[in-house]
Amino acid sequence: MSEELGLTVKKEDAPEWYQQTVLKADFADYSPVKGCIVIKHWGYAIWEKIQEVFNDAIKKHGVQNYYFPMLIPESLIKKEAEHFSGFTPEVAWVTHAGKNKLDEKLAIRPTSETIMYAMFSKWLKSYRQLPMKVHQWCNIMRWETKMTKPFLRGREFLWQEGHTVHETKEEAEKETSWALEEYAKLSEDLLAIPVVKGKKTDSDKFAGAEFTLGIESLMSDGKALQMGTSHMLGHNFAKPYEVKFFGRDEKWHFGWQTSWGTSTRLLGGVILTHGDDKGAILPPKVAPIQAVIIPILFKGKEEKVIKKCKELEKKLNKTKLRIHFDNREGYTAGWKFNDWELKGVPLRIEIGPRDVDNKKFIIVRRDTGEKIAIEENNIQETLETFLKKIHNNLFTRAKEFVKTHTAKPKTVKDLKTAINSKQWALIPHCSREECEKELENKSEGGPRIIPLKQDSIKNQICINCKKEAKYWLYWGKSY
Amino acid sequence: MSEELGLTVKKEDAPEWYQQTVLKADFADYSPVKGCIVIKHWGYAIWEKIQEVFNDAIKKHGVQNYYFPMLIPESLIKKEAEHFSGFTPEVAWVTHAGKNKLDEKLAIRPTSETIMYAMFSKWLKSYRQLPMKVHQWCNIMRWETKMTKPFLRGREFLWQEGHTVHETKEEAEKETSWALEEYAKLSEDLLAIPVVKGKKTDSDKFAGAEFTLGIESLMSDGKALQMGTSHMLGHNFAKPYEVKFFGRDEKWHFGWQTSWGTSTRLLGGVILTHGDDKGAILPPKVAPIQAVIIPILFKGKEEKVIKKCKELEKKLNKTKLRIHFDNREGYTAGWKFNDWELKGVPLRIEIGPRDVDNKKFIIVRRDTGEKIAIEENNIQETLETFLKKIHNNLFTRAKEFVKTHTAKPKTVKDLKTAINSKQWALIPHCSREECEKELENKSEGGPRIIPLKQDSIKNQICINCKKEAKYWLYWGKSY
Repeated sequence: MSEELGLTVKKEDAPEWYQQTVLKADFADYSPVKGCIVIKHWGYAIWEKIQEVFNDAIKKHGVQNYYFPMLIPESLIKKEAEHFSGFTPEVAWVTHAGKNKLDEKLAIRPTSETIMYAMFSKWLKSYRQLPMKVHQWCNIMRWETKMTKPFLRGREFLWQEGHTVHETKEEAEKETSWALEEYAKLSEDLLAIPVVKGKKTDSDKFAGAEFTLGIESLMSDGKALQMGTSHMLGHNFAKPYEVKFFGRDEKWHFGWQTSWGTSTRLLGGVILTHGDDKGAILPPKVAPIQAVIIPILFKGKEEKVIKKCKELEKKLNKTKLRIHFDNREGYTAGWKFNDWELKGVPLRIEIGPRDVDNKKFIIVRRDTGEKIAIEENNIQETLETFLKKIHNNLFTRAKEFVKTHTAKPKTVKDLKTAINSKQWALIPHCSREECEKELENKSEGGPRIIPLKQDSIKNQICINCKKEAKYWLYWGKSY
Repeated sequence: MSEELGLTVKKEDAPEWYQQTVLKADFADYSPVKGCIVIKHWGYAIWEKIQEVFNDAIKKHGVQNYYFPMLIPESLIKKEAEHFSGFTPEVAWVTHAGKNKLDEKLAIRPTSETIMYAMFSKWLKSYRQLPMKVHQWCNIMRWETKMTKPFLRGREFLWQEGHTVHETKEEAEKETSWALEEYAKLSEDLLAIPVVKGKKTDSDKFAGAEFTLGIESLMSDGKALQMGTSHMLGHNFAKPYEVKFFGRDEKWHFGWQTSWGTSTRLLGGVILTHGDDKGAILPPKVAPIQAVIIPILFKGKEEKVIKKCKELEKKLNKTKLRIHFDNREGYTAGWKFNDWELKGVPLRIEIGPRDVDNKKFIIVRRDTGEKIAIEENNIQETLETFLKKIHNNLFTRAKEFVKTHTAKPKTVKDLKTAINSKQWALIPHCSREECEKELENKSEGGPRIIPLKQDSIKNQICINCKKEAKYWLYWGKSY
């Protein structure tokens, strides 16, 4: 059975490794619907943790949860032209109900600006109602025609979308930055994934936004993953959807709007960033199980070991720790080790008959493989300490990876070499869209993000056109 | 502003009262998509509480959360004929993506048996994997052609669906009963809505089930609301979808299956059951705000009152209580009283300048209107006590209502009279489907539920056909 269980490839064979890890560790499975996956319990439990933490953060910020209809009439989605043309190529359309053709076809939401702002227009009357902060957790449908990949690119995914309206442009811009910071915290503090905070180039921003902020992270296969975006919408939607308020000056004004979202693609980021040849390694704060207890059984001495394991599981689960005792019969300890390593549980606690007597156990770190002898009497504190250490180590390791895989090429040729050797690059760029397109054709990669933290760009020239450079830009392949 | 705020009708004018309460108290709003509502923050926050409690209950029972694709290929949904014909009249179909016609049309899930069991068939191999307990929270689409009503009947709603596979018929039946009990607890212990636990008649069971258990509650307008159902599926799906396992006897067997669900219609039940002429009354355990603090302000003495209100809000929110200080400017205390009464907050705490000095406040119960003087120094315990009292009072009141609105007619004429005077009835019935249909034509109501707790049916004759009665049956109108 162990052949079936383990991975048959190493992590360097990224696409195959990723697929095997996702499927074999029960994160997700392919479904009978092309491009749509089943998120299985192991993946979904991580999503629940992410939801919990993010919900707390936004509620503290005065954001309220709603639920809006999934279907959007064609006439409504068409109102903002740029938005419509950006999304319609990938919209799934409902045209019939039962045996009847509908009078108007309905889009399954690719995002909810249009349906939400039609409602905001109805609800918003006075500046006293501002800021308005509306949020929902829901499923989203975008009919990808490119190759789909579990979590990273799919036709249906789960996400959250926040939508706010403000009295002034400054407040809206501040909110856009607030959301970006929350996403960065979510990635780094919760998932141990280091990110670059920045701004999208104009060619790459959200259809209908004035500008888009985003966080990007470099995955272990050299592709960048967009982990969350925050859009300053300005008046672009407020005008066609008539999101207006009666102001302090007793005149009507358009609201300043923002929207921001992240999705189950974060799960793909977790798997890709931290995993190794044995499978996933889960960041402790979101691991559905933080430590698994495995009994080491010898004939005649099973009882006292199992008793101790149960006792420990019960005791530790009364704390904030998430502990599981793997009491499955008919599997060897070795088989269980492999199983939980594949799934990425951060710590393993091994308990044999002698350990019960000595009140000392062996714990094994998933991230380093290190074995540590610990005392039973302060086990809770010890586990907590090691979970923190694992979080920090995963984060440090990932930061180191990004550092060593960020090229600073001087020429397009060097850029191309960097991209082809699984790196991304920080390049000086002139900011012109034509030049960006030209460089895309030459280099395979594309513009990822203009980092907010900019080194001096003075006297730098654009890597491609040699005109004056306007900013440093991350350039690379992406998911 | 207070004219706009309050209800313009009394609760006895049920349809208009319900609509005004839902809209004015921010439970929900109509959307530009016919038959689909926006669940607003006040309604959604209650749904979140329900999710929290139910999630805990099912996880303790070994159920795991998943997420399955929303779109189901026509060929897949067709496999179980009875199920298909039961649901297709109300299925919304996706036929196009972008500009392209799909090869096969896709149903938006009206429920997920078919897509889930296609996966179960792939996953299930051995009896060791049983029981398999899979669950999801998601949106559901059923293209209602009848008049829709927020929460109670709509084209899109949110729900949970549990799906289990068992080794034996007995285990599956036990699981079906377990789910029923959980729904009863949810209704009674959490929402203070008394329910009748029972079994659906054959004509009324889930399309594809062997039998359906359900909980029904009588609403204040005399219509019954189905608050949750639990289906024993037997082998009806296992056979067409090939949900099979290799058994202890080293032979292949079909799995015994169950499915069970409840939805956002519970919110409709809460509003209808407990509300009064002033609006909603929320059961304390799910009220997003359990007590609202309203400052009574006098010129020159605002500061100390506001300071005390803030202090109290902060202190009490550190406990498990959910407290809100309504510090809105430009609204009178009276306006705020009405606003929170409309929304149904169980307790109001009034704090004026003299109260701050005396360390005594007035609290007002939403359910009875009673005003009580309380001491500041044991305020937490006092609030907790009153929240419990309110829960109990709401439950007792609702039980009393059901009791006084349950007729026991001897004749069809009396049955008709009962139904037309906003009651339901407990009648002896022969169990024959033809007789049921006949009685539906005569009486306007229909079969609701065969209660599990049966008084003796011996020597009773069917109210309609006068043949031997087989069981007592609740009969009435429904949502």
